[in-house]
Amino acid sequence: MNPPFDSNKLNALMEEAGVDLVLATSKHNVQYLLGGYHFFIFDHMDAIGISRYLPAVGIPRGRLDGAFYIGNPMEAWQQEDEPLWVGDVRNASWTSRSTAQEAAESMRRLGLSAGTIAVEEAFLPMDAFGALQEELPQAKWVEALPLLEELRIIKAPEELALLKEASEGVVDAMQAAMKSAKAGMTTREIAERMYQEEANRGLSFEYALVCTGRSYVRAPSEARWEKGNILSIDSGGTKRGYMGDLCRMAVMGNATPLMRDLLGEVQAVQAAARSAVRAGIPGGQVFEAALAELAKCPHHDDMGFMAHGIGLVSHEAPHLTGTGMIPYPGTHEKRPLEAGMVLSIETELKSSEVGFVNLEDTVVVTGEGFEALGDDARAWTEVEG
Amino acid sequence: MNPPFDSNKLNALMEEAGVDLVLATSKHNVQYLLGGYHFFIFDHMDAIGISRYLPAVGIPRGRLDGAFYIGNPMEAWQQEDEPLWVGDVRNASWTSRSTAQEAAESMRRLGLSAGTIAVEEAFLPMDAFGALQEELPQAKWVEALPLLEELRIIKAPEELALLKEASEGVVDAMQAAMKSAKAGMTTREIAERMYQEEANRGLSFEYALVCTGRSYVRAPSEARWEKGNILSIDSGGTKRGYMGDLCRMAVMGNATPLMRDLLGEVQAVQAAARSAVRAGIPGGQVFEAALAELAKCPHHDDMGFMAHGIGLVSHEAPHLTGTGMIPYPGTHEKRPLEAGMVLSIETELKSSEVGFVNLEDTVVVTGEGFEALGDDARAWTEVEG
Repeated sequence: MNPPFDSNKLNALMEEAGVDLVLATSKHNVQYLLGGYHFFIFDHMDAIGISRYLPAVGIPRGRLDGAFYIGNPMEAWQQEDEPLWVGDVRNASWTSRSTAQEAAESMRRLGLSAGTIAVEEAFLPMDAFGALQEELPQAKWVEALPLLEELRIIKAPEELALLKEASEGVVDAMQAAMKSAKAGMTTREIAERMYQEEANRGLSFEYALVCTGRSYVRAPSEARWEKGNILSIDSGGTKRGYMGDLCRMAVMGNATPLMRDLLGEVQAVQAAARSAVRAGIPGGQVFEAALAELAKCPHHDDMGFMAHGIGLVSHEAPHLTGTGMIPYPGTHEKRPLEAGMVLSIETELKSSEVGFVNLEDTVVVTGEGFEALGDDARAWTEVEG
Repeated sequence: MNPPFDSNKLNALMEEAGVDLVLATSKHNVQYLLGGYHFFIFDHMDAIGISRYLPAVGIPRGRLDGAFYIGNPMEAWQQEDEPLWVGDVRNASWTSRSTAQEAAESMRRLGLSAGTIAVEEAFLPMDAFGALQEELPQAKWVEALPLLEELRIIKAPEELALLKEASEGVVDAMQAAMKSAKAGMTTREIAERMYQEEANRGLSFEYALVCTGRSYVRAPSEARWEKGNILSIDSGGTKRGYMGDLCRMAVMGNATPLMRDLLGEVQAVQAAARSAVRAGIPGGQVFEAALAELAKCPHHDDMGFMAHGIGLVSHEAPHLTGTGMIPYPGTHEKRPLEAGMVLSIETELKSSEVGFVNLEDTVVVTGEGFEALGDDARAWTEVEG
């Protein structure tokens, strides 16, 4: 079977980084390297027994026929139905240490006992790393993150289709949750409703931030959505691992002129950012366009803007820096955007009179500009209650 | 505020293990030590940005006023509503390394730079452990798992109530999914229905193993549930982290005499295991009772039995060993069961004529015997289709 990713690109990235083998142990990178396969029992949880579920995919540079997968014995069921492309599959591990021991065995067989191995430092437990070091004392260990982020940075059509389905599902679920809400419902109840509405649309629910009234507290709580008050829902839901993450606004009753003005300012910043998006422009220009528009807004002192890549991970490459809402390095600020990159673009406004006003959109970079995913319901959704 | 766990027991366990501070970094132990608090955004996913979400709770031996929590800046919202009992709360981390650096800072302030620190080796990423070692080169690191499993082994009444709610919800969801199924529905569709039915009952879905016809393949697939065929659903769903994990059987049409006989054998083994359960008997006696009954069954060669503790983790202490279905050490085989321990008890039968017949029950150990949670629908559920 052919690998489901761009193996020439992976080879080139490994060559450039001087890496002999990449060892993925995060759920998102294991799934990516296996072409969508993810063992269903551990989609959400990790812990079991005296350790945890830890899958591992190893790919030696330039030798796809040496690729291996270490899984759990229960995975054989699923692999009967979804055969893996890697040749060396061993469903043998009940602990993180034994995953590492099995992986080390495969690397030894590949003659890489003294090789340079790229590992996911935030997703490789210390006991597994300890076992790798014991088994392969001559090996050199380096961080796989930049390499794997770069490999995933351009989305294939199938990935874009899943991101579209997830984004549309999340927005549709929000509309359903908002429109069925009754006055006095708590933000916790609305978050639970979001879980159900996403489940009913075939999504896997990740989270819902819900904020109402004049508060800026976005954690679901006993706060009640009362008549005349606004509500923001910012929710993440995944379709086969691909994240829809959007924010939409509602009001119980009719939006006041001030509410319309405030959301208008947020929309203007979003529009400025979105219309800057196009293959070839440096990613940082999205920020410049947004911040230039934001500076013109009457409430600019109370506003913030953020943009980041999105895909299997809710915030991923390209990393475009920001106004400090999240402190990532702007690694890709000067790099030209490319068609197939996907950006999450978000503007917020904190109004002491109205509350927390926020829009978050997902846009795919195209040659001519952008395509927005799940782009409905960006005005006030007015709810009877 | 008082700690939400038995702090005398924790102190004694730490004393016995020679541990100066326990540092929890798994979601289940962080939640346990914080009395149920879990940051809602990362209930399911971990990855974000250039690293991951990694919370940490540190508790120095005998000095509860020195306890600390390292979280993510977004957690401040939730903590306004759910204040934490620990005094030193720093919502400061966006990466696993920085969680470790913040934790090391707290440990230094506590004068534990050269202390013995118990860490969760399967739940502490290698980069976080690397940072701990850099920051505290004199410290000694030991495994926290036995200590934290022992701390959680007896469930408090509030925990039992959540396990009951989760177990009942899972069984109720199964009944709904089974009864609404139509002939020809795939096991994948039934697993998706389980997600929705659990969501509608306020549970967080973890997984559903679904098996139909004469196959023993329990992964959801395109296999169809046809008239005359059986179906098993084994599903995990959590209520505030506490796991309901049960298995029930259905048939589309009427159960044949053979089907009744086979489920009868499974029920007999379950009954033998359950009736052995009582505070004071060694855990291994549950196995002995089950295996003695199993040996008498006409289909004993095709049967298997398993039992394990259950709580915040689907398989946890007490570890009672087994017939090899899952290779855990039988650490607690000779130890007397205690009231408030919770066991998952499971018998399976593979019949080439009928298919995969399985029951899994959850029982709480009591002074007189046991209380079963979610104990409905243990006979064949006959479905019209």
